[in-house]
Amino acid sequence: MTTKRVKEILSWYSADNAGTKANLARMLSHGRLAGTGKMVILPVDQGFEHGPARSFAPNPAGYDPRYHFELAIDAGCNAYAAPLGFIEAGAAEFAGDIPLILKLNNSDTLAKTGDPISALTGTVDDALRLGCAAIGFTIYPGSGEAKHAYEQIRDLAEEAKAKGLAVVVWSYPRGGGMSKDGETAIDVVGYAAQIAAQLGAHVIKVKPPTAFIEQAKEKIPIKTLAERARHVVQCAFAGRRIVIFSGGAAKGKAEILEEIRGLADGGSFGSIVGRNSFQRPRTEAIELLHEIMDVYASA
Amino acid sequence: MTTKRVKEILSWYSADNAGTKANLARMLSHGRLAGTGKMVILPVDQGFEHGPARSFAPNPAGYDPRYHFELAIDAGCNAYAAPLGFIEAGAAEFAGDIPLILKLNNSDTLAKTGDPISALTGTVDDALRLGCAAIGFTIYPGSGEAKHAYEQIRDLAEEAKAKGLAVVVWSYPRGGGMSKDGETAIDVVGYAAQIAAQLGAHVIKVKPPTAFIEQAKEKIPIKTLAERARHVVQCAFAGRRIVIFSGGAAKGKAEILEEIRGLADGGSFGSIVGRNSFQRPRTEAIELLHEIMDVYASA
Amino acid sequence: MTTKRVKEILSWYSADNAGTKANLARMLSHGRLAGTGKMVILPVDQGFEHGPARSFAPNPAGYDPRYHFELAIDAGCNAYAAPLGFIEAGAAEFAGDIPLILKLNNSDTLAKTGDPISALTGTVDDALRLGCAAIGFTIYPGSGEAKHAYEQIRDLAEEAKAKGLAVVVWSYPRGGGMSKDGETAIDVVGYAAQIAAQLGAHVIKVKPPTAFIEQAKEKIPIKTLAERARHVVQCAFAGRRIVIFSGGAAKGKAEILEEIRGLADGGSFGSIVGRNSFQRPRTEAIELLHEIMDVYASA
Amino acid sequence: MTTKRVKEILSWYSADNAGTKANLARMLSHGRLAGTGKMVILPVDQGFEHGPARSFAPNPAGYDPRYHFELAIDAGCNAYAAPLGFIEAGAAEFAGDIPLILKLNNSDTLAKTGDPISALTGTVDDALRLGCAAIGFTIYPGSGEAKHAYEQIRDLAEEAKAKGLAVVVWSYPRGGGMSKDGETAIDVVGYAAQIAAQLGAHVIKVKPPTAFIEQAKEKIPIKTLAERARHVVQCAFAGRRIVIFSGGAAKGKAEILEEIRGLADGGSFGSIVGRNSFQRPRTEAIELLHEIMDVYASA
Amino acid sequence: MTTKRVKEILSWYSADNAGTKANLARMLSHGRLAGTGKMVILPVDQGFEHGPARSFAPNPAGYDPRYHFELAIDAGCNAYAAPLGFIEAGAAEFAGDIPLILKLNNSDTLAKTGDPISALTGTVDDALRLGCAAIGFTIYPGSGEAKHAYEQIRDLAEEAKAKGLAVVVWSYPRGGGMSKDGETAIDVVGYAAQIAAQLGAHVIKVKPPTAFIEQAKEKIPIKTLAERARHVVQCAFAGRRIVIFSGGAAKGKAEILEEIRGLADGGSFGSIVGRNSFQRPRTEAIELLHEIMDVYASA
Repeated sequence: MTTKRVKEILSWYSADNAGTKANLARMLSHGRLAGTGKMVILPVDQGFEHGPARSFAPNPAGYDPRYHFELAIDAGCNAYAAPLGFIEAGAAEFAGDIPLILKLNNSDTLAKTGDPISALTGTVDDALRLGCAAIGFTIYPGSGEAKHAYEQIRDLAEEAKAKGLAVVVWSYPRGGGMSKDGETAIDVVGYAAQIAAQLGAHVIKVKPPTAFIEQAKEKIPIKTLAERARHVVQCAFAGRRIVIFSGGAAKGKAEILEEIRGLADGGSFGSIVGRNSFQRPRTEAIELLHEIMDVYASA
Repeated sequence: MTTKRVKEILSWYSADNAGTKANLARMLSHGRLAGTGKMVILPVDQGFEHGPARSFAPNPAGYDPRYHFELAIDAGCNAYAAPLGFIEAGAAEFAGDIPLILKLNNSDTLAKTGDPISALTGTVDDALRLGCAAIGFTIYPGSGEAKHAYEQIRDLAEEAKAKGLAVVVWSYPRGGGMSKDGETAIDVVGYAAQIAAQLGAHVIKVKPPTAFIEQAKEKIPIKTLAERARHVVQCAFAGRRIVIFSGGAAKGKAEILEEIRGLADGGSFGSIVGRNSFQRPRTEAIELLHEIMDVYASA
Repeated sequence: MTTKRVKEILSWYSADNAGTKANLARMLSHGRLAGTGKMVILPVDQGFEHGPARSFAPNPAGYDPRYHFELAIDAGCNAYAAPLGFIEAGAAEFAGDIPLILKLNNSDTLAKTGDPISALTGTVDDALRLGCAAIGFTIYPGSGEAKHAYEQIRDLAEEAKAKGLAVVVWSYPRGGGMSKDGETAIDVVGYAAQIAAQLGAHVIKVKPPTAFIEQAKEKIPIKTLAERARHVVQCAFAGRRIVIFSGGAAKGKAEILEEIRGLADGGSFGSIVGRNSFQRPRTEAIELLHEIMDVYASA
Repeated sequence: MTTKRVKEILSWYSADNAGTKANLARMLSHGRLAGTGKMVILPVDQGFEHGPARSFAPNPAGYDPRYHFELAIDAGCNAYAAPLGFIEAGAAEFAGDIPLILKLNNSDTLAKTGDPISALTGTVDDALRLGCAAIGFTIYPGSGEAKHAYEQIRDLAEEAKAKGLAVVVWSYPRGGGMSKDGETAIDVVGYAAQIAAQLGAHVIKVKPPTAFIEQAKEKIPIKTLAERARHVVQCAFAGRRIVIFSGGAAKGKAEILEEIRGLADGGSFGSIVGRNSFQRPRTEAIELLHEIMDVYASA
Repeated sequence: MTTKRVKEILSWYSADNAGTKANLARMLSHGRLAGTGKMVILPVDQGFEHGPARSFAPNPAGYDPRYHFELAIDAGCNAYAAPLGFIEAGAAEFAGDIPLILKLNNSDTLAKTGDPISALTGTVDDALRLGCAAIGFTIYPGSGEAKHAYEQIRDLAEEAKAKGLAVVVWSYPRGGGMSKDGETAIDVVGYAAQIAAQLGAHVIKVKPPTAFIEQAKEKIPIKTLAERARHVVQCAFAGRRIVIFSGGAAKGKAEILEEIRGLADGGSFGSIVGRNSFQRPRTEAIELLHEIMDVYASA
C-alpha cells in the first residue's frame, strides 16, 4: 500500500502521467525504507567508470553482476542502478525483485578527453525491455559540454516520461568554469540541484556540499552539513523534488554514518551508496546499509 | 470577449492558424490588462540562468515554484514564463489559471563557454502536454552561434505554429561582432527586433535601447527613450508585431516606473518584469506590477 | 494563357513534375512582362541582411511589410521574394495577387563569422502553407562552407520539386578561395551559374560580371557587358536555364538602365531589383521598374 | 539478350536483388560493347568540378547538356554519367536511349578547403525519378575526411541496392597521408580498388597506376601498365568486381590508345573517357571512342 | 542438438530474445568445436585495414573472397567475419554453410587521422539481408573518439538485438590517454573487456594481455599468460560473457600454439585467427587451425 507520505511526495509530480507516478511509487515503496519517503539506492557503474580491478578487486565477488542484484535485494535497498551490461546480466533472473535504474550514460578513465561529458550507452527502450523503473543520467554543469548533455537529457527525459518511466539525474559540477574546490561548494551544489530540477528530473543526486562558496554573494547558512544539505534541498524547488546524496570514495564506517546523520538532519531524502557497500565483505556491507537506513528512518 | 483592439492585433497575424490566434488572444485577454492590447508578463528563468541563491535568497519564498504561479495570477499578469521544471511543478495545480509560456532554451553561469547560445531544455510537445499558450526562445544576434539558434527556432516555431501555439522570442544582441555598448544600441536593438520578426515571432522581447549607435548611418530619432522605443516598434514590421521590453537588473521603483513611462510613450506593447517583481516582498511586488500595468493601461 | 515562348521555356524543364512547371508558368505569366519569357522580381530581404534602419530609413514606408507586396503588385513584377516574417505578414491579405518566393536562408551583419553561409530560416512546408510559387536559397561558391550549403539546397530542392514548387538560387561567389575582384569576375560568375544549374535550380540569380578573370585560361569574350552576360547565360546550360541578374547597391537611374540594357542585349532573362526600387519614393520606384521592364520587353 | 559473358559477370553479384542485377545488365548490354563484358562510359561532371569555361570552351557545343546525351548515344557508350543538373536537362528527352549514372557528389575548385571530400548534390530518389541505372559516388581514400565519405556511400549504397540500382564508385586516393606520387602508386591504386569493393561497389573506377610504390613491401609485378592493371583488377576481389580506368587530362590520340591497350591487356573491364572525348570536335570524339571500344572488344 | 554446455552459456544471456539466443547457439554449435562452448573464428578484414597486397600477396589465393569462405568451412571454424564487400561476394553462394559475422566498421591505413575511430561501412539490415548470425564492431577505448564509437555501438547493438542478431565487439585500447605498452597491459585489457561487456556485447574479442600494468593499483595475478587470461575473463562479468583472443601479427606455429595453450588454460573461450591462417598455404592453415581447436577442445 502506498503510504500517506509517499502519496504526498507523488503530489509534487502532478504534471507526470500515471505510469511515471507508479514507477516513482515502486521505488519509494520498496525495501527497508518502503513508505517512509526516504531512499537508499545501490549504484554499480564503477566497473565502467573506474575499471573492473579498481572496483571489484577489493571484494572479488563483485566481478559477477548477480552479486549486486542480490546485495541490493538482501540489504533492502529501494533500487539498484547500473549500466546496460550489468542490468542485462540479471534483469530476467531477478525480474520483479527490485526496482532497476538503467544508467544511460557512462565514462571511462582510459581516454584523456577535454570537457567532461559521458557517452550514451543505453536507451529508454532498453530500460523498458529490461523492466526498469527509471533511467539514470549524469550531467556535469560547468563543463564546456554541459549544454550538449542538457539537450541529451531533454530528449531522453521527454521520451522516458511519455513511456511512464521516472528520471534520475546525477548532477556533478565539474570543468573549466570553476575551481576544484568549487565543484562541491555549497552554492555550486545548490545550483546543480536547481539545474537538474529545471531539466525535469524526478530524483536528483548530488555530492555532499562543503562550506566553500564559489560565486554566490547572497547569504546562505553553511556552517553545518545539515544547514548545507537543507539549502541544497531548498534549491530543488523548496523540497518538492527528491534530492539524495552520494557517498563518494571508500572510507571508514564512523565517518560515513556521521555524514549521513548530517544529511538526514538537513532533510535529505536519502543516499546512494556504491563503493562503500560493494567493496566491503557482504555481511559488513549489509550491516552498514542497514545502519544508514536506520538513520534515515528515524530522521 | 475579445475586444476590438485585440481583434485588430490578431488581424496582423493573418497567416497563422486558428489555434495560434486563439493562444495569442488568451494572453491578450488575461489579467488586469486584458483587452487593452498591452501585456505584462512574469518570467522566472533566473534560477537556471543565474543560480537559485542569487535569484531567490532575497525573497526565499521564490524557491518554491508555486510562489511564482500565484504571484503572476494575483498580480493579474497576462502570462507566466519559465523553464520546464518550474512549469511542470505547477501546470496541473494551476491549470487554466494563467496562460503559460514554456521557455525552450536556457543557459547557466557555471560554464565558461565561447559564443553564447542557450541549451534546448524543453520541446513543443512539452508545451502542449503542460497546457501552455506559447513557447519562449532566446536568440543572441551577433553571437558566432546565432546562425545555429536561428535554425533551432526555425524548426521549433514551425512545429509550434502547426500545433496552434504562439511564439515568443527573446532577442538579445551579444557577442564577438559588436561592442559592449552596442548590445543595447538603438540600431542594434531595432535590428534584433527585425530579425525576430523575420524569423516568424509573434511576440518579441528586447531590452530598452540606449542612445548609442553601433553601425547604422541612417538618421534615427534617438534623444528620448520614447523616441527610441518607437523606432524599435517600427523595426518590428511598423508596429504589426507585438514588442515588449525587459526590465533588467533589480532597481528602485521610481527608476523602473520612469523607464516604463518612456517605453509606453513610445508605443511599447508592454513589459516583462522578473527580478524586479519576484525578488521584492510579495505585497510590494504586486503593488509595483499594478503601477506598471496602470502606466500601460493609460498609454 | 501560356504563351508560346513560355511553353518553350517550360520545355527545358522536362524532368520536372506538372506542379513545378505550373509554378514556373505562374511567375512567367504574371505582371507587365507576362508571357515574354522575361522576369523582373522584387526581393526584400535587406531588413534581415543589412538591418531595418539601413534598409528602410531612406523610405520609411518600407518598414511595413504590406508596402512591398503592394509595390510588387502595382509595378507589375513577376514575383515578390522575402524571408519568412515578411511573407507571413502579407501572404493571406494578398493571396493570389502575386507569385511569392520564400527565401529559405538569410544572414545578418551583426555577427562576425568565418566562412560565409546563411542560416536556414524557413522550410518548404512554410512555402506551401503560405501559398508560394517557389523557394529561394543563397549559396556562396568559394566559401569554406559552400559544401554545406550545397547539401542544404540538395535536400530543400528535392523536397520542393516533389511538392511542386520552383527553385530559385542566388549564387554569389565569395570567400577564402578567391580575390575580392574575383567575386564578380566573368569566369567566376559563369562558374557560379553552372554550379547553381548543376544543383538543379530552375531560376538562377547572379551579379553582373566584370571583365576581370580569376582562374580560367580559356578564351571568353569579355569586352562588353552584353558579351559577358551572354557567356554567363551560356554557362547556364547554353541558355536552357533562366538566368537573372541582381541590381546591387542603390545608384542613379541612368546608370541602372544602362546596365539593364547591357544585360538584356546579352540575353539575360531579367533582373531582380531590391534597394533600387523600395528605397526610392513609391512613384519613382514604379516608374523605374516600368522602364526596366520596357528594356526587357523590347530585347 | 543477355550474353553468356554478361551472365557470368552477374553471377559475381549473387547477393544483389534482381533489380540491381537488371541495371548492371542494362549497362553491360548497351552500345557497341554490348554483351562483351567491357564498358566505355562517358562522364561529364567537369562543368561542376573544373568550371564551365575550362570544360566547354574548347568545344562550345558542350555547354548544352543535350550534346553529351547525344554524344554518348551516337558513340555507342555503355552509359552516361553526370551530376543532377545535367541529367535533369535530358533525362526525359532521351528516356530509354542510354543507361544513366547520377553522380551523387561533386566538388568545385572555387573554394580552398582542407581535407578533400565532395558535397552531396543528388539523392537515390533523384536517380529513380530520372530513370537512372546507377548512382555514382567519389571517395578520396587518404583524405582526413575519407571516413565521412565512406559512411555516406554506406548509406547511399544500402538505399540504392534496396531500390534496385547499381553502385559505381570513383576511388581516388588523395590527401594528407600520402605523397603526391603516391596518389597513383600501384599499391595505393590497388588499395583504393579494394576499399571500394569492400564498401560494396559494383563498378569501380580508378586511375591508371604508375610503377611508384607508396607503402607495400610485398612483391607486386609493376613493370608494364598491363601488369599493374592486372594487379589492380586482382585487388578488386580477384577480378570479381568490374574495374574501369579513367583517362585523365586531355592528351593526344596515340598516347590515349597506347594507354588503353596496356589497360586492356591487363584485364581492365573498360574505360571512362571524359575530357578526351567531349573536348574534341564531335566527329573526332566519336572516332576516338570507337577506336577505344575496338581495343576492348578485341582484348 | 544444443549441448548442455551451450545451453549453460545461453543462460547467461537471459535478457536477450529468442532470435539472438538462436544466433549465438548457431555459432557455438558449428564446426569442429561445436557444442564445446569454445570458438575459433576466421576474420578477414585485413584487405580493408592493411591493404590487399600486404594481406594477400603472401598467399594470393586470398585475393578471391570465396577462398576465405571455403577456408573457414573446411577448417571447421565456428564463424567467418568480414566487411561488407567480402560478405556480399559469397553470402549467397555459401548460404547456410557457415555462420557469418558482418564487420560494421573498418579503418584503412592510407589516411593519417587523429584519434582512432573506424568508419561505419555496413548496417544491421545488411547483416540481415546477407543472412549473418552477428554483427561485429571495433571500439578503441582510450581514443579521444571512443565516446563516439560507444554511442555508435549503443545504437547498432540495440537494433541488432531487436532483430535477433548477436553482437561481437573487438575492444582494442589505443590512443592519447595511455602508453604504447599500456595498450596490451593486463589491467587495460581487463578494462577493455569490462567496457565491451557493459556496452552489451555478447562476444568480446581482446588482445592477449602482457604483464605490464598501466593504471590499476589493486593486486592482480599477472605472472603467467594463463593467470592474465583468467583475470580478463573475470573482468567480463566473472566469465559470464564469451571472451576470445586475437592472434595478432603473423608468427611461427610453435609460438602460436604456446600462446593458445596459455589462453586456454586461463579459461579463454577461444581465438580469432586471421593473418596466421589465411597467409599460410591452405593445407598448413587448416592444419594449424585444427591444432588450435584441439588445444581448446581439450582445455
